[in-house]
Amino acid sequence: MTKLSPLAPERFPIISDISGVGMTSVACGVKYSGKLDLLFAKFDVGTQVAGVFTQSQTAAAPVEWCKKALLQGKARALVVNSGNANAFTGKSGDNAVRLTAEYASKIVNSKPDEIFIASTGVIGEQLPHKKITDAIVDLDIEACIDWRSAAEAIGTTDTFPKGSTEKVMVDDTEVLISGIAKGSGMIAPNMATMLAFIFTDASISSDILQLLLKDSVEKSFNRITVDSDTSTSDSVLLFSTCKAKHLYIKNYNQKELKEFKAGLDRVLLDLAHQIVCDGEGATKFIEINVSGADNNDAAKEIGFSIANSPLVKTAIAGEDANWGRIVMAVGKSGQKANRDTLAISIGGIQIARNGQAVEGYNEMPVAQHMKGSSIVIDVDVGVSNGLSKVWTCDLTHGYIDINADYRT
Amino acid sequence: MTKLSPLAPERFPIISDISGVGMTSVACGVKYSGKLDLLFAKFDVGTQVAGVFTQSQTAAAPVEWCKKALLQGKARALVVNSGNANAFTGKSGDNAVRLTAEYASKIVNSKPDEIFIASTGVIGEQLPHKKITDAIVDLDIEACIDWRSAAEAIGTTDTFPKGSTEKVMVDDTEVLISGIAKGSGMIAPNMATMLAFIFTDASISSDILQLLLKDSVEKSFNRITVDSDTSTSDSVLLFSTCKAKHLYIKNYNQKELKEFKAGLDRVLLDLAHQIVCDGEGATKFIEINVSGADNNDAAKEIGFSIANSPLVKTAIAGEDANWGRIVMAVGKSGQKANRDTLAISIGGIQIARNGQAVEGYNEMPVAQHMKGSSIVIDVDVGVSNGLSKVWTCDLTHGYIDINADYRT
Repeated sequence: MTKLSPLAPERFPIISDISGVGMTSVACGVKYSGKLDLLFAKFDVGTQVAGVFTQSQTAAAPVEWCKKALLQGKARALVVNSGNANAFTGKSGDNAVRLTAEYASKIVNSKPDEIFIASTGVIGEQLPHKKITDAIVDLDIEACIDWRSAAEAIGTTDTFPKGSTEKVMVDDTEVLISGIAKGSGMIAPNMATMLAFIFTDASISSDILQLLLKDSVEKSFNRITVDSDTSTSDSVLLFSTCKAKHLYIKNYNQKELKEFKAGLDRVLLDLAHQIVCDGEGATKFIEINVSGADNNDAAKEIGFSIANSPLVKTAIAGEDANWGRIVMAVGKSGQKANRDTLAISIGGIQIARNGQAVEGYNEMPVAQHMKGSSIVIDVDVGVSNGLSKVWTCDLTHGYIDINADYRT
Repeated sequence: MTKLSPLAPERFPIISDISGVGMTSVACGVKYSGKLDLLFAKFDVGTQVAGVFTQSQTAAAPVEWCKKALLQGKARALVVNSGNANAFTGKSGDNAVRLTAEYASKIVNSKPDEIFIASTGVIGEQLPHKKITDAIVDLDIEACIDWRSAAEAIGTTDTFPKGSTEKVMVDDTEVLISGIAKGSGMIAPNMATMLAFIFTDASISSDILQLLLKDSVEKSFNRITVDSDTSTSDSVLLFSTCKAKHLYIKNYNQKELKEFKAGLDRVLLDLAHQIVCDGEGATKFIEINVSGADNNDAAKEIGFSIANSPLVKTAIAGEDANWGRIVMAVGKSGQKANRDTLAISIGGIQIARNGQAVEGYNEMPVAQHMKGSSIVIDVDVGVSNGLSKVWTCDLTHGYIDINADYRT
């Protein structure tokens, strides 16, 4: 891993085991230099699964596999490798996935379509899948999970492993929701935009899981951007082992789900924010609140127009409260904005209103806010009541350093 | 001006005077440190004008002025300042434009709406328009134009002045088409995306000029991107003094216009390419040819998805033929692409076809091409016959240097 992001959390969380999940991670040799690069998770019979994937037109082979496997809703294992994305690898790439799934299914005694696969890393090179299957056969799958190593095994340019966990009540039973994620570049909305795997012992059927996951992704992973680029491999999978003894959840509107929904949202949002904090080269975490837009979708689009603007992101890197660039980004979004009622605050301090700089505006407290590592921008575009919130990071020399020679 | 772009042309072109145009440039004090910052051009009675402007929802005050002024199609003067964009300056900004136009109209003895105004520079600060009007009154407007100084006066972060000129025949009369432009950051399609002023002595009515300009902008300025950001001030204006003695052109399809159209296209494309070559921090000029798309618009969108991808642009900066990122950018465009028929060439050498790396592909000649300063990428997305061509530059540390503290 490269130099630790200055925005990294203090420590990896302590995550309890989840009944019905065994997991281990090893170095199988796909990644150079003996680093952890393979995660194998095994699920008890009865585990349900949901998934949200990249909308890329050139999605990787494992994504195509998982989309099909999801149709039957059950999962017995998850195989994730890092170092090679198995993307743009043609029919051989599809074969590599199928062979891996068949192999793993024999080990866990399941059907191949109960095996879920994800790959992340370089695009366009054939996956050495034999390294993966050779490694799987010898694995001692532990019920006592080393979550931190699991998170490390799925990482690529990540500078810290990402995990999150919550305990919530479903009816009168405590359930766990725990997840790991990877991602630091090629992060943009409209997909999972990274890898995230969430595990719970809750007893929830796959069709309800799917609705829960889609909702929660829309409020978290689909609200973050690092560099506007969208990966061919992005996948979020949610597994429920159904070991918890509460009543089996088959209805999305069941009141017993209320706490679970909130807990799932917190786990996904925490992971999404960690991905932003590990944005390649990031030194500032940026929250953008858009209000006054034509509708919520318009607000989201304006938010991303600001969050993806290289000029806004470099200004923040330079600790410059250059709100003119925010105006520019609002204008280029294509969404309705009223030049003469637009208002902008940074760090809670209003800089502009009614289409011009606030009279006697004192730049000092804003400059102070810009020096911090967490920047808040509020923009009201003065049209209607549409609201949205998105998160991103700044654009620095570090991003260029990391990406100008990733393969070398 | 900062360090000269390594992609700068060897010299500023030699541009002849244009009958009916007087022009001068001075330092009026809007820009710090006594640099040229004001261009004043005067046109003889009878001059026709056309314009294309930013589509930003937060367009600057001078843009709004010009759009209205264009309705009457005649021009007597052009006033351009650099150093302050007079954007997001509210009603005072509108007043600054109106006062400048009224002042200039008295000098050239015209109506105010025959005065065209453009401003470029910092957004959100009030324009000190009195500095401009005070300077105008004393100007000795020269018929013998210093085109290089004119181009310098309209520049901001540009590292070289941009000019281009062509001589073409209309019927049996030689006419001149000459232009200057500025722009190096905040460059993206869907607008002029910079300032460009084109002058000709051809005798063409404003409504035909407008069609010619729109066509030509679509093939040039609307096909370039530096950082995907779109300015609030971008304007392209085309002035015809109608001094040439050929028959007056009132019909877009007149065969006499054929050479003029081609000449105008060359001037605009040359200026557009110069803007890319002066892209902030640029070290590589990149041409992207997309074929096989659903239609031409889809091809253009895919082209820009590649051209705006920070991961593609940083890979090229690092001289890395990382075609996986090109696949990613095709995928995220949202336009149809066939993963299994996609083909990619770099520097004319096919790297991938039928959805995977070309067997026995030798990276050496491609690596050699990547070391050059002019990079050509061909992508066939394998769907239909849509074609497009776009241009951009790489994303380097220089971009961050320039933009992380533009105002300080």
